[in-house]
Amino acid sequence: MPTAPDSPEAAWQQLLRIRQSIDNIDAALVHLLAERFKFTQTVGELKAEFGLPASDPDREHRQIARLRELAVESNLDPEFAEKWFNFVVTEVIRHHIQAGAEGVERASGAEPDAE
Amino acid sequence: MPTAPDSPEAAWQQLLRIRQSIDNIDAALVHLLAERFKFTQTVGELKAEFGLPASDPDREHRQIARLRELAVESNLDPEFAEKWFNFVVTEVIRHHIQAGAEGVERASGAEPDAE
Repeated sequence: MPTAPDSPEAAWQQLLRIRQSIDNIDAALVHLLAERFKFTQTVGELKAEFGLPASDPDREHRQIARLRELAVESNLDPEFAEKWFNFVVTEVIRHHIQAGAEGVERASGAEPDAE
Repeated sequence: MPTAPDSPEAAWQQLLRIRQSIDNIDAALVHLLAERFKFTQTVGELKAEFGLPASDPDREHRQIARLRELAVESNLDPEFAEKWFNFVVTEVIRHHIQAGAEGVERASGAEPDAE
């Protein structure tokens, strides 16, 4: 944080700088989500092609517990982190199902998988 | 991507490697969300302290348009990106309101703000 602003104009300038940081963070978030999505697609294809178990509830529980811990460490509300994770998982599964229904190229019978 | 696996065992090993990548990505996502949250808190405090406008609909439209473009560039469904952004904004606002109601330290009267 820069020094505290001492006027509305200085506050506005600080706000604009913070918005740039928020925009940079959001761009990074979108790119990471894109990369995550590529990985979950590959996992779905691997599972379908080699007959691996479609779901692994234990893994999901471990993922949530770990993300909650990471949230606490980084001063983020763990409830928010869990809700956010569940949103992403649900959306990714929904999207995989939709992509399959629309005939997008993927291994036939691949289970949607959030991983 | 490594070479395509030629057996269920090789596929399983590849899946485990991909899971590590997904876990790394998720950790990065949580840390970035934590940083984003810190910034939006500061913005809310600045706005309250200096009487800056609480909301800026134009900014939100620009943010969504930009994130959709970034999604297309990185091969992520832009609908997913927009839905994800709206989820984060809604949750952040909800969380700021809740934090205020619970008397967590923040500038008195600070508007919840997703920025």
